[in-house]
Amino acid sequence: MLLYEHLADDFSSLIANGQIRPGERLPSVRHLAQQRNLSVSTVLQALRTLESKGLIEARPQSGFYVRGRGMRLVQGSSHDEVKPAVEVGLSGNLMKVLHQNESAGMAPFGSAIPAPQLLLAPKLNTLYSRIARTQPKLLAKSSHGHVNEDKLVRALMRRYLEWGTHLHSDEIIITNSCTEAMMLCLRAVTREGDTVAVESPTYYLMLQLLEAMGLKALEIPTHPSTGISVAALELATRNNAVAACLLIPNGSNPLGCVASDDNKRAIAKLLAQRNIPLIEDDLYGDICHSKQSNTSANNSANGHPRPIYSFDESGNTMLCSSFSKTVSPGLRLGFVAGGKRAADVLFQKTVNSGNTNAITQNVLAELIESRGFDLHLRSLRRKLSDQIARTRDAVERHFPTETRITDPQGGFVLWIELPEGINTMNTHALAVKEKIAFVPGALFSPSGNYSNFLRLACGHPWSPQLDDAVKRLGAIVGKQ
Amino acid sequence: MLLYEHLADDFSSLIANGQIRPGERLPSVRHLAQQRNLSVSTVLQALRTLESKGLIEARPQSGFYVRGRGMRLVQGSSHDEVKPAVEVGLSGNLMKVLHQNESAGMAPFGSAIPAPQLLLAPKLNTLYSRIARTQPKLLAKSSHGHVNEDKLVRALMRRYLEWGTHLHSDEIIITNSCTEAMMLCLRAVTREGDTVAVESPTYYLMLQLLEAMGLKALEIPTHPSTGISVAALELATRNNAVAACLLIPNGSNPLGCVASDDNKRAIAKLLAQRNIPLIEDDLYGDICHSKQSNTSANNSANGHPRPIYSFDESGNTMLCSSFSKTVSPGLRLGFVAGGKRAADVLFQKTVNSGNTNAITQNVLAELIESRGFDLHLRSLRRKLSDQIARTRDAVERHFPTETRITDPQGGFVLWIELPEGINTMNTHALAVKEKIAFVPGALFSPSGNYSNFLRLACGHPWSPQLDDAVKRLGAIVGKQ
Repeated sequence: MLLYEHLADDFSSLIANGQIRPGERLPSVRHLAQQRNLSVSTVLQALRTLESKGLIEARPQSGFYVRGRGMRLVQGSSHDEVKPAVEVGLSGNLMKVLHQNESAGMAPFGSAIPAPQLLLAPKLNTLYSRIARTQPKLLAKSSHGHVNEDKLVRALMRRYLEWGTHLHSDEIIITNSCTEAMMLCLRAVTREGDTVAVESPTYYLMLQLLEAMGLKALEIPTHPSTGISVAALELATRNNAVAACLLIPNGSNPLGCVASDDNKRAIAKLLAQRNIPLIEDDLYGDICHSKQSNTSANNSANGHPRPIYSFDESGNTMLCSSFSKTVSPGLRLGFVAGGKRAADVLFQKTVNSGNTNAITQNVLAELIESRGFDLHLRSLRRKLSDQIARTRDAVERHFPTETRITDPQGGFVLWIELPEGINTMNTHALAVKEKIAFVPGALFSPSGNYSNFLRLACGHPWSPQLDDAVKRLGAIVGKQ
Repeated sequence: MLLYEHLADDFSSLIANGQIRPGERLPSVRHLAQQRNLSVSTVLQALRTLESKGLIEARPQSGFYVRGRGMRLVQGSSHDEVKPAVEVGLSGNLMKVLHQNESAGMAPFGSAIPAPQLLLAPKLNTLYSRIARTQPKLLAKSSHGHVNEDKLVRALMRRYLEWGTHLHSDEIIITNSCTEAMMLCLRAVTREGDTVAVESPTYYLMLQLLEAMGLKALEIPTHPSTGISVAALELATRNNAVAACLLIPNGSNPLGCVASDDNKRAIAKLLAQRNIPLIEDDLYGDICHSKQSNTSANNSANGHPRPIYSFDESGNTMLCSSFSKTVSPGLRLGFVAGGKRAADVLFQKTVNSGNTNAITQNVLAELIESRGFDLHLRSLRRKLSDQIARTRDAVERHFPTETRITDPQGGFVLWIELPEGINTMNTHALAVKEKIAFVPGALFSPSGNYSNFLRLACGHPWSPQLDDAVKRLGAIVGKQ
């Protein structure tokens, strides 16, 4: 037996006995080499052997970790059937849950907001301070219906151009948030009582927007790895009953899937042909970490998969986004590229809130143009990816074996399926008492689906406290 | 004949001969005393004699001016009749006019925006710079549905308390503008197709809001000096057909009237009894300069007449405002005190734009709490009052004698009535070629009233250029 085989054998036993558990990190290569008096290359060979057997996995810039027993993945629905559109009425429950999640001292698996230390509020403060001093005329300007600072428009165009997406300066409208951007688009293209197609499951705020506007939701089956079913969308939009689509193709929330370029192209074509406006939420585009994205057509220089918008030359797609997940949730600045309906969106912006603060626009422009910003994004993606992996490990260790879980390619939330019969609204009530926040699955569907699902947000750096919270949550689930 | 009688006689002749014209300022008391070798008290006696004869008038901190020949005032409608509600469809014309008004080099009688040098953008810059440095955590915060910075809420409460208006901290919602505040209120209490009662004439943005939401406008006769007709409002709201009222009781735009406290009390009572929500725009409350306001019940320490809100203990009134006319139109920060419907307004805020930038909130809070702010308001009121007087003088000198004009008690716009048959949309087309901006009367009514009216904004310090612009505008009108 060779030296590296000895070492590999030792660790195989330790893992088999449960002495090193799934999700735990092995000692560093250097440490092992010193400890066992082996060469670094021998240790590396041992680790590669374990890796090839599927017992451990390397995580970039972090080390080698014991792989889980292979928790089962959440399955997509097996059919492309679409149920009739329904009215949305979950806002009462939603507000209650979100309010409870914000009590002091809750384990932060609720809202999908990165921990402050992962973001750039300090840089924003510096920029505010400097720009307010050096560009004193910004707040003196006022103009009816002109909402954009050119500098920010150009910065957005340059960024999107890097991954093959041409925004046009005359279709961009700076807004007070991505939420406002989507709302303005909905107002521009729908009327009360209309039907809007959404992914199923979809982000609860999308459903709340529809509820607030008296719009019906049409749930389109969406697969955790491939995204929305194009076939189902085709079926659902045949009879002119859909006024608009509201989708998150890059890092769908809560599934974390990124649609393939082929599917994006097909969706762009289908909706343009049928003249059904697509409102595309690209909020998670900058924090996709799909394993495929380096090898597939989703490939792009800085990791941002192309949005559907970039496959649509007809102007039918309205691209909405902001930097609330990558810069600061408190900045309150988003934008929409409104395509052929930009004038209607601008009208809505004018009457709904008027212009947008020009200092804040210049602050954001300078930040995203700064040399360090792409480095920041890379680092953020790595950290979020690590946090997701840690949380998955913990769920695997602490939740019942029947649990299924997603392997997200974008964003930083996990979607977890518990055995049927468990109602996660009840789980939530129990978890709140244990100071654990999450969002129950029922809030991601207007028609009562996903009552045995829950969403865990992975916005915070891993800690023993978080591990303990997952453990206690697993215990609550286990008793139900 | 006494010395002072001689001097008074001289000036009487000069005025009668047109050698000193209406609106022109007399030489200063000191100057006259030196020039004529008279004592100051003799000069003053002469001036008081002229004043008592109605030939000149004193303007605070500015001097003595030749009074006009007494231009006739715009008359209110003589009846309390209310015509049926109508759909609003003037946005196309409005956008065109506002766009033309913003061409470079236009005489600035268009939008009601004070000149930058009258406002506080430099102070805002200083505060931005300091607050971003000294309160680095402001942008790191994020919370679903909590939009307020406590410091701004407290500052607003303190300010309103000074003139007898108790805002409650739990009903205040900070917004991105007064426009957003009103829009959120409308969304909270109306549905597409509903009818909203407005003053007639009313601010075109109000009508644009209704148009954007598919709401009908019910025009309530409003008098240039006494404000909206309470009798007409009573009549119009008898049969439950009105979903909400959207009014500007303090410095109505374009009439500039301030409703009396009695009328405010009556309106509050009427609408509360009938459970018809009142959305009250108090944007001009801080820049009212009613002559009555020092002697009547409108009296208040710092010149802000009480809003209807303060006469309504039922929670039926939703008070909306911002500091865009007194601090900076570019700040983009407003608020609403939502009364008993505050939760519904907050829900609308959450889904329409989410939270509001916390640095900007603290900047405004510090500014309006600063010791100089009330002094600034006093100075601003004086300047605006002077600009109104100068513009009135110029209109009197340069417009046809049949012209009627308002004597505004609030805000800084003049509402001018031309002989019937003149269509001010045509006047506007001609004026644009002469580089003169204003807003045609037709844009203040959804039913085609006021086509022979126009609104002149008096936001800019008086100058020979402005006088010349009024002269050329008068010539255009004269030829029509």
